[in-house]
Amino acid sequence: MKSCVGIIGLGSMGASLARNLARHGYRVSVYNRTFEKAEEFVKEFPDDGFVLCETLEDLASSLPSPRVIMSVITAGEPTKAALRDLSKFLAPGDLVVDCANSFYKDSMELGKEMEEKGILFADCGVSGGKMGALLGPSMMFGGSEKAWELCGGAILAACAKAKGGEPCAARLGPVGSGHFVKMVHNGIEYAIMGAIDEIYDIFRREGFSAQDCARIFKKWDEGALHGYLTEITAKVLEHRDPKTGKAFVDQLKDEVRMNGTGTWTVLSALELGSCAPSVGEAVFERIFSSEPALRRGFAPSPAPEVSVDSSEAMQALYLSSAIIYAQGFDVLRAASGRYGWDLDFAEIARIWEEGCIIRSDFLPKICEAFKKDPALPSLLSSPVFEKIEEENLQALRRVVSKAVLGGVACFVLESSLSYFDDFSRPLPVNLLAAQRDYFGAHGYERADEPGFFHTEWEEDGREVKRQ
Amino acid sequence: MKSCVGIIGLGSMGASLARNLARHGYRVSVYNRTFEKAEEFVKEFPDDGFVLCETLEDLASSLPSPRVIMSVITAGEPTKAALRDLSKFLAPGDLVVDCANSFYKDSMELGKEMEEKGILFADCGVSGGKMGALLGPSMMFGGSEKAWELCGGAILAACAKAKGGEPCAARLGPVGSGHFVKMVHNGIEYAIMGAIDEIYDIFRREGFSAQDCARIFKKWDEGALHGYLTEITAKVLEHRDPKTGKAFVDQLKDEVRMNGTGTWTVLSALELGSCAPSVGEAVFERIFSSEPALRRGFAPSPAPEVSVDSSEAMQALYLSSAIIYAQGFDVLRAASGRYGWDLDFAEIARIWEEGCIIRSDFLPKICEAFKKDPALPSLLSSPVFEKIEEENLQALRRVVSKAVLGGVACFVLESSLSYFDDFSRPLPVNLLAAQRDYFGAHGYERADEPGFFHTEWEEDGREVKRQ
Repeated sequence: MKSCVGIIGLGSMGASLARNLARHGYRVSVYNRTFEKAEEFVKEFPDDGFVLCETLEDLASSLPSPRVIMSVITAGEPTKAALRDLSKFLAPGDLVVDCANSFYKDSMELGKEMEEKGILFADCGVSGGKMGALLGPSMMFGGSEKAWELCGGAILAACAKAKGGEPCAARLGPVGSGHFVKMVHNGIEYAIMGAIDEIYDIFRREGFSAQDCARIFKKWDEGALHGYLTEITAKVLEHRDPKTGKAFVDQLKDEVRMNGTGTWTVLSALELGSCAPSVGEAVFERIFSSEPALRRGFAPSPAPEVSVDSSEAMQALYLSSAIIYAQGFDVLRAASGRYGWDLDFAEIARIWEEGCIIRSDFLPKICEAFKKDPALPSLLSSPVFEKIEEENLQALRRVVSKAVLGGVACFVLESSLSYFDDFSRPLPVNLLAAQRDYFGAHGYERADEPGFFHTEWEEDGREVKRQ
Repeated sequence: MKSCVGIIGLGSMGASLARNLARHGYRVSVYNRTFEKAEEFVKEFPDDGFVLCETLEDLASSLPSPRVIMSVITAGEPTKAALRDLSKFLAPGDLVVDCANSFYKDSMELGKEMEEKGILFADCGVSGGKMGALLGPSMMFGGSEKAWELCGGAILAACAKAKGGEPCAARLGPVGSGHFVKMVHNGIEYAIMGAIDEIYDIFRREGFSAQDCARIFKKWDEGALHGYLTEITAKVLEHRDPKTGKAFVDQLKDEVRMNGTGTWTVLSALELGSCAPSVGEAVFERIFSSEPALRRGFAPSPAPEVSVDSSEAMQALYLSSAIIYAQGFDVLRAASGRYGWDLDFAEIARIWEEGCIIRSDFLPKICEAFKKDPALPSLLSSPVFEKIEEENLQALRRVVSKAVLGGVACFVLESSLSYFDDFSRPLPVNLLAAQRDYFGAHGYERADEPGFFHTEWEEDGREVKRQ
């Protein structure tokens, strides 16, 4: 008999994952809250041998012990409620894997709750969209070694394979780490999409059509910028709207939604005290687009001219993307330290090489950098990144400068450049420290003496040592 | 007999507020967890008539009914614990005012808890530092009309007075609104300090000394940029270190700390879906300065030249500050809508005119703008701000462009410029919407037809209407 796995939730991701597992020889029991949807699904794929379950109890009964059940439903309350329900029908030693885009703290909480019942719990980030889930996503697993033993086989079978055949999935650490890593993946995705968007914006301002831009991105995808996001940018831009026959993107509203993971990345960076300004800027740009009240009543201002060479635009986007990856890995490093996860950054880069949305030719370079020096303070200080910086810095400066003069917002490109510039020089925050001490008596540190000091600004200006 | 007020906590803010109230004729009962500190304080100011209280019970007993007690201790757990303790000795109808830098949601929670015991609770943001608290701070009160009746007199007496004598304090809305408004005040403060810091950084890169910069900021404080932060920037920069005789700021470490309110402003903006990128950038710059691990091992790179004219720098800082205020008021508008506070933005600007850290010549302009049109979608669309934009936009573009080319990080200046540029043009996020639909089937909106659509990208490219 084939190995058995249960799937809860037959939305686009869950359905694809179920078919993926079936294709790899697993007998998959499927459950969906709306039973009709499960019935239709099983009818649509009669050769996949799905076991149709009407209730969570049926699902549990259909599986041999210890059970392995993957949940692929909406994150947050729906996931929590379904898994609590499900746990009533499970036995100690069974395993539940949450494959939704759940917030990692929710997963850690739910993990504890399940553990108290003796049920194993794991969180697994799944990236690659619907097609990825079907053909092979990147899968970021957080859970115990025991949990990994129970379901690692299925995950390694279903996931994407890198060029050498290595599976793009791994156990990264304990519960929480899977969804944390997936969240940061999405944060990087937000920022890179923001940078692409800004470059596209510059091109359009220069007078290029969507088709012109498509050709440029297609060419870039054949070079150093090869990656999934570059590829689909070209595809989306060359798409013609069936209704009007015109460029598809030109028919859309300039409003975009979010699913939360970008925002969580910013919140988490702030909470962990790590620095991810480009993700922050990308999220704020999306928020801005969804604030129609704010934009109401503004007349378009006369736009100054912008003229950017497409090869320098490519270089700018290339370096900006590198810096965005560096910010993402800095957030991972902070979390690894805070939670004692001991994350293997080379391994994370490796499982992002195929299947996920941010896969690109950067990932093998990042993997190599962390393999050579797992304790790298920042990717930006690795030899391979230093070369990228050297070769592309001037182009990034020129493009941002032109955008700034030309009235094209470049939140993400600029914040990545400023982030880079902050590395190689003393920061001017000595002034901030002095100002804070002036108005709030918050104290400061001296460069020439350890300790914490305060100046009696409004009295005689003398310095007092506090610690 | 004089009116009576209790003060909990004799740190720099609490002690100053107690003396301030005593000076205005209030009989102030004082309590501090470490009793010796309270004893010393009362001894130090024998003419102020303080009533020394050893325990919270003593404090409660010393006050007539209904009691009015202001708490000025560390926000978070210490405040919660002290006020829960205190409540045991209070009677229904008594009032507790939390004057710490508490997170507004904590205040709303604590308010409910107190209300259940019949105790009135209010949250009052106090800005102005130690000297402000002593001589007259700006005070932002959130609480019921009844609570305001009990303590409004004391607050109006103690607060700063504007040029026409109007008190810089007001009841702004129900519990939570006081600390929320104070939090946004601090967010604006973070971003303006960040912008000042970036301009200072450019000057230093140009070869100006701290003294040179002091002279420039002093001159600016006599012009359009007149404001407390400009003033103290000049004072801090001209200060000589008593120990070395050299410029004080040059003796400090380039690391700065935070107290949380800036971070909370970013978190709140994200949660409320309002756009405050310049606050975000200022917070991330501070985080970066406190990540020594990240900066370790970077060699200073050869710095390109920067040459910025001081008058264009002034114009850049002027417009950037205006845009930062606009972002802050946008966050206030979002909170007012979400919580039904019905905030009076003109009134908020008015009570920030004196006493607080961000007081400046902008505030009367902001007050006027909101008086003329309380429903302004953004300050940036008010006539007075439009004039500022027109006159200073080119200078801001030039300064940011030069900083970008010259390797000086300008997170805040640039994000304020991009925020401005976003207003007057269609955003390129139509591309983002199409990309999201491509890889995640997230759907998009068309400009020419209501509803929510999805394209079958990997199949026949047809469009499906979803809603």
